[in-house]
Amino acid sequence: MAKQHISSARKPVKRVSAMKAKAETIGQYLIRRLQDYRVGHVFGIPGDYVLGFYDQLCRSDITVVGTCKEDGAGFAADAYARVHGMGALCVTYCVGGLSVANAVAGAYAEKSPVVVITGAPGMKERTNDPLLHHKVKTFATQREIFERITACAVAIEDPDTAYRDIDRALATCWRVKRPVYIELPRDLVDVVPQHPVPSLPPDATVDQAALEEAVAEAVERLRAAKRPVILADVEVHRFGLAFELLTLSERSGIPIAVTILGKSVISERHPNYLGIYEGAMGREDVAKVVEGSDCLLMLGTFLTDVNMGIFTAKIDPSQAIEATSEKIQISRHRYDGVPFDAFLRGLLLAKLPRRSLPPQAKPAAKVAAIVAKQPLKVTRLFHLIDQRLDDDMAVVCDVGLCLFGAIDLTIHRRTEFIASAYYTSMGFAVPASVGVALANPKLRPVVLVGDGAFQMTGMELSTAVRQKLNPIVVVLDNHGYTTERAIQDGPYNDILNWRYHRLPDLLGAGWAAIVRTEGEFADAWTQAVANRDSFSLINVQLDAYDFCPALERLGKRMAENIPK
Amino acid sequence: MAKQHISSARKPVKRVSAMKAKAETIGQYLIRRLQDYRVGHVFGIPGDYVLGFYDQLCRSDITVVGTCKEDGAGFAADAYARVHGMGALCVTYCVGGLSVANAVAGAYAEKSPVVVITGAPGMKERTNDPLLHHKVKTFATQREIFERITACAVAIEDPDTAYRDIDRALATCWRVKRPVYIELPRDLVDVVPQHPVPSLPPDATVDQAALEEAVAEAVERLRAAKRPVILADVEVHRFGLAFELLTLSERSGIPIAVTILGKSVISERHPNYLGIYEGAMGREDVAKVVEGSDCLLMLGTFLTDVNMGIFTAKIDPSQAIEATSEKIQISRHRYDGVPFDAFLRGLLLAKLPRRSLPPQAKPAAKVAAIVAKQPLKVTRLFHLIDQRLDDDMAVVCDVGLCLFGAIDLTIHRRTEFIASAYYTSMGFAVPASVGVALANPKLRPVVLVGDGAFQMTGMELSTAVRQKLNPIVVVLDNHGYTTERAIQDGPYNDILNWRYHRLPDLLGAGWAAIVRTEGEFADAWTQAVANRDSFSLINVQLDAYDFCPALERLGKRMAENIPK
Repeated sequence: MAKQHISSARKPVKRVSAMKAKAETIGQYLIRRLQDYRVGHVFGIPGDYVLGFYDQLCRSDITVVGTCKEDGAGFAADAYARVHGMGALCVTYCVGGLSVANAVAGAYAEKSPVVVITGAPGMKERTNDPLLHHKVKTFATQREIFERITACAVAIEDPDTAYRDIDRALATCWRVKRPVYIELPRDLVDVVPQHPVPSLPPDATVDQAALEEAVAEAVERLRAAKRPVILADVEVHRFGLAFELLTLSERSGIPIAVTILGKSVISERHPNYLGIYEGAMGREDVAKVVEGSDCLLMLGTFLTDVNMGIFTAKIDPSQAIEATSEKIQISRHRYDGVPFDAFLRGLLLAKLPRRSLPPQAKPAAKVAAIVAKQPLKVTRLFHLIDQRLDDDMAVVCDVGLCLFGAIDLTIHRRTEFIASAYYTSMGFAVPASVGVALANPKLRPVVLVGDGAFQMTGMELSTAVRQKLNPIVVVLDNHGYTTERAIQDGPYNDILNWRYHRLPDLLGAGWAAIVRTEGEFADAWTQAVANRDSFSLINVQLDAYDFCPALERLGKRMAENIPK
Repeated sequence: MAKQHISSARKPVKRVSAMKAKAETIGQYLIRRLQDYRVGHVFGIPGDYVLGFYDQLCRSDITVVGTCKEDGAGFAADAYARVHGMGALCVTYCVGGLSVANAVAGAYAEKSPVVVITGAPGMKERTNDPLLHHKVKTFATQREIFERITACAVAIEDPDTAYRDIDRALATCWRVKRPVYIELPRDLVDVVPQHPVPSLPPDATVDQAALEEAVAEAVERLRAAKRPVILADVEVHRFGLAFELLTLSERSGIPIAVTILGKSVISERHPNYLGIYEGAMGREDVAKVVEGSDCLLMLGTFLTDVNMGIFTAKIDPSQAIEATSEKIQISRHRYDGVPFDAFLRGLLLAKLPRRSLPPQAKPAAKVAAIVAKQPLKVTRLFHLIDQRLDDDMAVVCDVGLCLFGAIDLTIHRRTEFIASAYYTSMGFAVPASVGVALANPKLRPVVLVGDGAFQMTGMELSTAVRQKLNPIVVVLDNHGYTTERAIQDGPYNDILNWRYHRLPDLLGAGWAAIVRTEGEFADAWTQAVANRDSFSLINVQLDAYDFCPALERLGKRMAENIPK
């Protein structure tokens, strides 16, 4: 994780200024509050129900980023949130809102703080329940849907509670790191509330006595343990606690393994870093150390099927301390009212004995020289990319072979790794790379994406062109859904063979090449890195059945759940 | 409307065969029941939760049509349903399902009978509520969302009620012409129910006495009227009653106007056809006849903002008879328990006096000769297309300028006109054209689509290539969202200028041209029509502010609702 991220995510946000709010319209208030949370970009596509608010956005310091399609805005805002601390998107009613449902659901599942802003028919237009365009069943339909995929869904209906509604939604987004929904009827955008009610104070749930007891018990267990290990996951990143994690590990000598979803929460070159743990699906040496620990400190861990190696993980809760934003559990008992960050800081303040690191059996780095004419295999592709990543690159990874391939290799340098590794929605990576680059202009996205996923959202490179971004996009073209081929093969896994490298001609910008051998890839990479003015796309031709070892293992395991 | 459609939509479906069902798995039963409703194609993208069912589909007579993205499958299935009587799509859990939410909502709003089939985690996998990939909040989240955008949502959870669940969903889809949702856990696909409960009989709601009274009152009013007029809308099409409508009009001499959504429900060259009515937004001569009627028979009418000319329609309910699948209303009173089709057939059986048609002020057909070097204006573009449509073409129209442009012209010949004219979801047309062509191979789609909409879903031409279809796609490239420019202009209405005519190079198939003048368009059209082997794309360069008169009027009216 890049340092600039750690510091920025932990920067406190501004408090609500009640004085300033008084002269503001509801739309202006929402914009100012977004800026309090350092939201500098809003992704989306306008429509007539939201044009008034778009106009206000354009007159503010926030940059409006138009995407080709609404789901592209959803994925971009999600990735922006992961890198920047909070993201936002703005779409029109139903045709726009329902088009981001999947991307927002992904942000919910993986705890990414995205603010969904949607226009809506004016309150005055709704009398007698007319059939206005874009309406589905009732005027509440869209809100009811978003209640199921956000942590807080508010439909602003009364000017005097509008500020409070907005404050509650944004505070929830910040606190739980999950999407929230704000519906703004078009006839309220320009209204100045006459008697705004004061905002409610945020929920205070800290139980000081429970916190102290939990920390004391955890410290005692860690002190007594012979082989303590930390298993870190994505919440450490989301709650801006990567610095605390690293300090705890460095002071105590407790080594750190991470999950797939938590990949890059600590630099993979750090001496305390063990590798990615994923039960029997991952590296044996890492599994041995994690599962052999007599005190496993699980920090911000999602016990998902993917993270837990399709449930092949053998973790004994009696030997574990599990701390997340949702619960603190030690062995078989649970502490309520103990915040994740306070618990972790409590451990930091306690004096833990300093140990020497356990011997690590890191896999030998395979840096075999390039065989120029050798047809590219997927395993070699990842090795070649690995050797070529530099500190300024962020790896933005789509699902399937890209993700599983990335497990088997060590990303050596300190870099961001952004992926939809739990919700695993295909088509995440290309639009996400737009969000990453805008959230931190110092990062250059390296996008790893399969051909199937590229056909879903790859055209959002159009947005990269408009924003003058320069991602390097590696399309793993294996002519279909190869991850599914590893689970169960059939004609439904085939797709049309696009000539992805002809995209610059269609978009009128960018550089691209098609490669089949190791030498061609190395040359293309060099040219892509040198092309700083636009996107670069490398169309890598792979065999349809070239599974990497990780995919082979996962496919076999996942096939067990498919009826034959 | 093409004759083959009228006859096929009214063809009765097969009854459930309880005997045959006994040896079948739940998956096989679902497939057979879909075929009973003449569903011959299922659109979608597989995923691991639905692979087992995909395999069963592939072994059946149903053709699986893979799209680039799930929403493409949603729009294709919607259009297929409109032409064929029922459509179906099949996707994986959440990442797939939530990606079709918008398309399915559109089918709900415009009454298109689409069956949404989704895979889901196995029932046995759900014990202890694990975090399985693709899950959002709970295992019920996806179903709860689809309850809000379908007429019936069933999650199959018990083998013994599975047949009944499937029957109920499909019967509802057929009866109300709206989408339904069937969730199929992967461990039930291959299960043969041991003690299947019998299916429930469909709802019987006909009130014979009310039907007779309603028909008698309507007949009396129609007999007494001096200027009776029929206003026909899309439900006539959905319920397969176009033949009855035409017969009623021809026997009685009552002329027919239609709404935008109902466009093509009667041949626009028929002598009884008046034109499209849309209040003060449309043709004055049509409005005069409709609003001046002393007995307006509204058949299957949606009183939406778009249909009613943004509520400029002046229709006096006291002078109207409104018959839809949801209600029968005469003047200010309402009859319950009277089915739409039975009411219409009742009118047909009654002896109405035969009148002569009122004098019609049809606009003179503007067939000015082509000025070869003349830069193309949007109004002229529609005239040129109008002259060139033939009987075998189906116009598939996206929203915005395409739709409003299509209002001002008369499509002379008998043809299908498919559009999202109420829900108005951009990006409908290209994937919809795939559904149209597969639903009726005799129809050649002519797609009218703006550049903004094309950037959303235009890549589904890839699916047209895979299916060996030959749509003619006219891209109205006005460099952004011109409909919104007519309402409120701003930089958010600009998009990247793709070179749409380079698409054949990317896809490795198709033919395309860029045109700027009337002569170039005429030449390109001729070549497109001659190219029967693949898609043809005509990239029409238009001025960003070239509004057609209809858009000018609508934009002005719609701007009144935007805060300044």
